[in-house]
Amino acid sequence: MERCDLLARYSAEAGRLTRPYGTAALRAAQETVAGWMRDAGMTVRRDAIGNLIGRYAAENGRPQTAAQTRTFLLGSHLDTVRDAGKYDGMLGVLVAIACVERLHERGERLPFATEVVAFADEEGLRFHTAYLGSAAFAGTLDPATLAARDDAGITLAEAVRAFGGDPTAIAGDRRDPGDLLGYCEVHIEQGPILETLGLPVGVVAAIAGQTRIAVQFSGEAGHAGTVPMALRRDALCAASAFVLAVEAAARSRDGTVATVGQITAEPGAGNVVPGRVRLSLDVRHIEDTVRAAVCRQLRARAERIGTARRVAVDWQVVAEADAMACDADLTGVLAGAVAQTGWPVHRLASGAGHDAVELSAIVPGAMLFVRCAGGVSHNPAEAVTTADVAVAIEVMDRFIALIATSATAGTGQLDA
Amino acid sequence: MERCDLLARYSAEAGRLTRPYGTAALRAAQETVAGWMRDAGMTVRRDAIGNLIGRYAAENGRPQTAAQTRTFLLGSHLDTVRDAGKYDGMLGVLVAIACVERLHERGERLPFATEVVAFADEEGLRFHTAYLGSAAFAGTLDPATLAARDDAGITLAEAVRAFGGDPTAIAGDRRDPGDLLGYCEVHIEQGPILETLGLPVGVVAAIAGQTRIAVQFSGEAGHAGTVPMALRRDALCAASAFVLAVEAAARSRDGTVATVGQITAEPGAGNVVPGRVRLSLDVRHIEDTVRAAVCRQLRARAERIGTARRVAVDWQVVAEADAMACDADLTGVLAGAVAQTGWPVHRLASGAGHDAVELSAIVPGAMLFVRCAGGVSHNPAEAVTTADVAVAIEVMDRFIALIATSATAGTGQLDA
Repeated sequence: MERCDLLARYSAEAGRLTRPYGTAALRAAQETVAGWMRDAGMTVRRDAIGNLIGRYAAENGRPQTAAQTRTFLLGSHLDTVRDAGKYDGMLGVLVAIACVERLHERGERLPFATEVVAFADEEGLRFHTAYLGSAAFAGTLDPATLAARDDAGITLAEAVRAFGGDPTAIAGDRRDPGDLLGYCEVHIEQGPILETLGLPVGVVAAIAGQTRIAVQFSGEAGHAGTVPMALRRDALCAASAFVLAVEAAARSRDGTVATVGQITAEPGAGNVVPGRVRLSLDVRHIEDTVRAAVCRQLRARAERIGTARRVAVDWQVVAEADAMACDADLTGVLAGAVAQTGWPVHRLASGAGHDAVELSAIVPGAMLFVRCAGGVSHNPAEAVTTADVAVAIEVMDRFIALIATSATAGTGQLDA
Repeated sequence: MERCDLLARYSAEAGRLTRPYGTAALRAAQETVAGWMRDAGMTVRRDAIGNLIGRYAAENGRPQTAAQTRTFLLGSHLDTVRDAGKYDGMLGVLVAIACVERLHERGERLPFATEVVAFADEEGLRFHTAYLGSAAFAGTLDPATLAARDDAGITLAEAVRAFGGDPTAIAGDRRDPGDLLGYCEVHIEQGPILETLGLPVGVVAAIAGQTRIAVQFSGEAGHAGTVPMALRRDALCAASAFVLAVEAAARSRDGTVATVGQITAEPGAGNVVPGRVRLSLDVRHIEDTVRAAVCRQLRARAERIGTARRVAVDWQVVAEADAMACDADLTGVLAGAVAQTGWPVHRLASGAGHDAVELSAIVPGAMLFVRCAGGVSHNPAEAVTTADVAVAIEVMDRFIALIATSATAGTGQLDA
């Protein structure tokens, strides 16, 4: 908890925590974390995009290089959103380090190497593209993304270089799936379910799929004083009817969340009837078929609103990601570790995306959620309790032990 | 019509007509208009804020100075909104010049002086305060307004000086009501009523009162993927319900217009539930009591929406102007002039404010509306027909003649 407080001081903005990829603030946070990794018996390196990686070697007698020894991955990210909380990302890295520290203190080595990865970009604040760090690690980063520019016009390739990385080495940096045993990430829930249930931790069953849509309503601008109501083609009235339809559709389908987070009205003067409104739509569900059905329903609804109001509707799917089920075997081991602590095992879905989604391309993954106050995240009010974090460390300690037992008993493959 | 086209070339923005107060574009437009005024037999001056004033002297034998001879005012404004049409304001100035030109061509003098005033600011684009020109003329400009700043931080006082005016002389520049006989303004309707009725012109009975309100809905921001619908306090959903309530309230009260023209959602990210929404509300009606009732009803409605959705509502009245009835006598003369052209006299309300509102503080006023295509204004698509403008000139020519007859027959007071 003290380490979370300490890391929150490294910010690119005075007075609040904002730590985007490639900044001096992130570099300083990494240096501090690297020190803690070394204290926990790890060797530390940075990969081509600048992810920080601490490696705790396997037991004596086993080969020590990544090519010869299989590796279990733990981790999360150190970058943040603007005006962020202290736990989203950082908690997962620090719990992982705490677990390795326990092994180190006990002088214990595992039948596999353990790596703690602190991803350099998950939030995507600077380049408006999430998971840069984990995508590079998993080899799923589109090389075209290196040409993406931040708001100051700096390309990602330039930012990687300035951050001490090597953009030309990213493609070759992809980790070999054959070397990897599994990945487990601890993260704050960012939702209110564990709090509602009175549980410190929960096992993530799947990460919801997500569709992002840009919707535009085009009516006719007009003078607010002179165009009678009956003759108006007010784009904002159409958009407002749609916003309420989005809310109603999500409420009527269990487990669906749908959000209009951005809206702009043009020309945007108090005395002019809005002629055009642009808004963002974000729809998520754990089942891809339900998400697709909600999107179809909302598109039809937008069209009906447009027809009734003589307002044209433009509908552009901007991004789409299918739901990702966590690895059944690894999640079973994680559930077993929770059960060993005496807490009920609750499996829940993640509405937010995580580095685990990118890593699923190369390694089986599991996630443990930690209860957070009020479900609040992406906000300085983000909070977790010391007791809950202690449970998370305990669960991860037991989880690693179970994986080690399984690896020793078996063939080096997981057979939980 | 050619003159309207020509004036539209003087713009502060390339590719579209935008001519705010104090710009080189407005100065150039004024110089061109001043030339036309001189051609029509007028002497030309600029007052302390930079209104352009052309004076056509009274008949021989009458005293020629403003202090000794009473003056009838015609006019409108030469400034525009952003991306404006060619007629809003300019048409009134040019019709007035055309009328004086006819007198001049006929070698005709009136028993009073005639001034054509081209106001330097009606739209308020630059300083976000409308009627700067006519308020200075009428002595109703709050001296504190001179400290108002444009978006570049330039004060109005500085802008007046840069425009060749004298901010310290504005207060003393107020025209003496005792010198003024009346004011008549020709303006495009900016609404669809005359088009619907098939009439080229209409006589304005009154200018609607107007209330502008800043409304804020404060809920709670949250992660779009993780906060279940039932637990949300989405400020944009509350605002959307309110926008539809505004529309419904205006539709249910004949003659009411109510508009939400501006809306912003914070934090304004596609993956964040809006925590705060600010919007503008503009309510207008010809009867002040109706307008007040609609505002009360909408405030109560906003509170109910807020209570139901656990969203706080803030309600700030930003500006309020009572309805202004046009002068009954002068409007009667104007109606008589319309009747002389053979067109039916239709009296209508103006939903938009005009310079006539400010001038009503010092002089009886009347207004003639000219049909405009589709009721469109504040838009490059603004259009009037040459035939309708010819009717307007004919009406104004006859109106001036009726005033002159009345002034000659009577005591110099209007007795129509």
